[in-house]
Amino acid sequence: MLNSFLSRLSGDYLFRRTGELIREYEVSNPDKRILRLGIGDATLPLLPEICDAMSTAAVELSHYNCGYQDERGQLFLRESIASHYARLGVSLSPEEIFVSDGAKRDLGDLFDLFGDVTVVMQEPYYPPYLDNAIMRGLRYGFISANAENCFLPEPREVESYAPCVIILCSPNNPTGIAYPRELLERWVDFALSSGSHIIFDSAYGSFTTTGCPASIFEIGGARECAIEVSSLSKSAGFTGVRCGWSVIPHELESLSRMWSRRQGSRFNGLSYVTARGGEAALSEGCVEKLKLQRAVYLSGARAIRHGLDELGREYVGGIDSPYIWMKIPSGDSSWEYFRYLLEEKQVALTPGAGFGGEGYMRISAFGTGEMKNEE
Amino acid sequence: MLNSFLSRLSGDYLFRRTGELIREYEVSNPDKRILRLGIGDATLPLLPEICDAMSTAAVELSHYNCGYQDERGQLFLRESIASHYARLGVSLSPEEIFVSDGAKRDLGDLFDLFGDVTVVMQEPYYPPYLDNAIMRGLRYGFISANAENCFLPEPREVESYAPCVIILCSPNNPTGIAYPRELLERWVDFALSSGSHIIFDSAYGSFTTTGCPASIFEIGGARECAIEVSSLSKSAGFTGVRCGWSVIPHELESLSRMWSRRQGSRFNGLSYVTARGGEAALSEGCVEKLKLQRAVYLSGARAIRHGLDELGREYVGGIDSPYIWMKIPSGDSSWEYFRYLLEEKQVALTPGAGFGGEGYMRISAFGTGEMKNEE
Repeated sequence: MLNSFLSRLSGDYLFRRTGELIREYEVSNPDKRILRLGIGDATLPLLPEICDAMSTAAVELSHYNCGYQDERGQLFLRESIASHYARLGVSLSPEEIFVSDGAKRDLGDLFDLFGDVTVVMQEPYYPPYLDNAIMRGLRYGFISANAENCFLPEPREVESYAPCVIILCSPNNPTGIAYPRELLERWVDFALSSGSHIIFDSAYGSFTTTGCPASIFEIGGARECAIEVSSLSKSAGFTGVRCGWSVIPHELESLSRMWSRRQGSRFNGLSYVTARGGEAALSEGCVEKLKLQRAVYLSGARAIRHGLDELGREYVGGIDSPYIWMKIPSGDSSWEYFRYLLEEKQVALTPGAGFGGEGYMRISAFGTGEMKNEE
Repeated sequence: MLNSFLSRLSGDYLFRRTGELIREYEVSNPDKRILRLGIGDATLPLLPEICDAMSTAAVELSHYNCGYQDERGQLFLRESIASHYARLGVSLSPEEIFVSDGAKRDLGDLFDLFGDVTVVMQEPYYPPYLDNAIMRGLRYGFISANAENCFLPEPREVESYAPCVIILCSPNNPTGIAYPRELLERWVDFALSSGSHIIFDSAYGSFTTTGCPASIFEIGGARECAIEVSSLSKSAGFTGVRCGWSVIPHELESLSRMWSRRQGSRFNGLSYVTARGGEAALSEGCVEKLKLQRAVYLSGARAIRHGLDELGREYVGGIDSPYIWMKIPSGDSSWEYFRYLLEEKQVALTPGAGFGGEGYMRISAFGTGEMKNEE
């Protein structure tokens, strides 16, 4: 009577496992200080404007109980998200936006919309894509992102799976590479011609610096085939506050109706307090300040790249994203190299194997914000 | 390629539909004031202690980013939840508690643990039980709670489904009836002897006034067969703030491990701000104040019962719960009676048909808090 798909999942969730190994090392070596470049976790404090908005909202509730919130998310927040897209030149109606407590949530929950289909994802991948496809009992396939294709896989590689659900993440986690506009155009064309759907993970969209699209809806035709999932976790430091969303365009009417119905039975909107924080983060007044915050992480990535250059390491990423994807210089497996770096160098990276990318390590520059904090 | 189970769901989510009908009436009749006794939504403001805790937490984040939170929920919050159970005489480890953004979420998500099984629920039921069983493609069955069995169905009625997953909700939504201890003991015995699991919805547990158990874990043997889902929505006014949890005892090791793994791929803990609010709500200092708040709703229920007595209406509930389950005095269907009351009496109740209980209406006394607010 147990769900056999769930028991097919491998061991522990990746970041829970690395976290435990790091804690064990710390307990045994209390004098050692670890440089944490593993998790993509915000380290700079939240903007005071965001905290003020949340604090004010909390006090409001002692005077008046806001009660149940809209299960699509608060309208004021969906309007703020629409303004964010308007700044990218993308016009969306708040009715096309569905709020959630984070992109990780939606990336799993959205699979509920699909039945007899193959989910295709780039390898290396963000682990929840695979975990959630397995848990839902969906078929899955991989397209390799590797040094040969400059970590930019082409649509022809998924032809055998089509029509399918294609997950694209750009700027990519874990490689740190952003997909150029022309490549995204080819992906959208492929989805349209093959009757496939794209789930576009734009959690890192706000980090692009080279003109690569921050949203799939910057690409013509995307409204007919794509859902976008995004979040304030990386763009505004909300990893511990939780505010994400999905965009389902009106053109995908069945999916939108099904999602709306599903959310009605599962969700009651974000905390009113969080929603006011999200509204503040997306306001005009915070746009430039958040850009500066992200610039701190990107300058950390630049410093790491320079360090790797000096060591002669092979890597990609770190320009449009705070992630760097580094080739392991030795013959070690990525878990062996994880232990070596932790124990010998007191540096925590994330093993590529956790992303289906053996031979590589993911370096996160988010930890450099913490260094800045302590300066 | 779409999930055919999802498209089998009926029309709109119940409270979305009633909400829209009420709004339509308001727009056409702007001079009319509606007495809202439909939704079970908190109307009294949150305790200042809770709001202060959230406000302080929000300000903290402008100095230090707490980052990703434990996907089981913050330890301090799980410890507070364990203290809440200790006050009921139930001993739980924080490791047995998994936080979420609400009972509605968990009641659906928990079905992910089960595969080839029948979900059995009382009829009338809380609509998400059925919606979520349908969406997951699980078989489902009903046990009737009706005037003949005093709205307290016995385990023998599910024998043909066993082993199965049994959803029990006490005090019950929508009937307002609490299951006595001896009946819950029979249910636990049945689950143990038939190899079934109980999912116990204790969202209204804190309203019991007649000694009925507030938690299934007050019953011996429950740790070997039951999961409990609960929330601060009704007990502390968190409908717009979102804090719920599930208890999976160590004895149910496989379920606990599977749930932990699932949540790792879907959840990152509550907002730190919400979690601090939840901790405050569950603190010793708030226990008595929240009891008073619930007493306001229960005194509203008492007033409604007196009114119904005077009108000679048949009903149950309203003693251990702010819900009253009233028999429709005319031959009207519950949707017809909903419209009649809305248009002729300007009173909004919820049609029993929405809970699978045609011939009845659910009256919620939560709206009486609002009247108190305005006094």
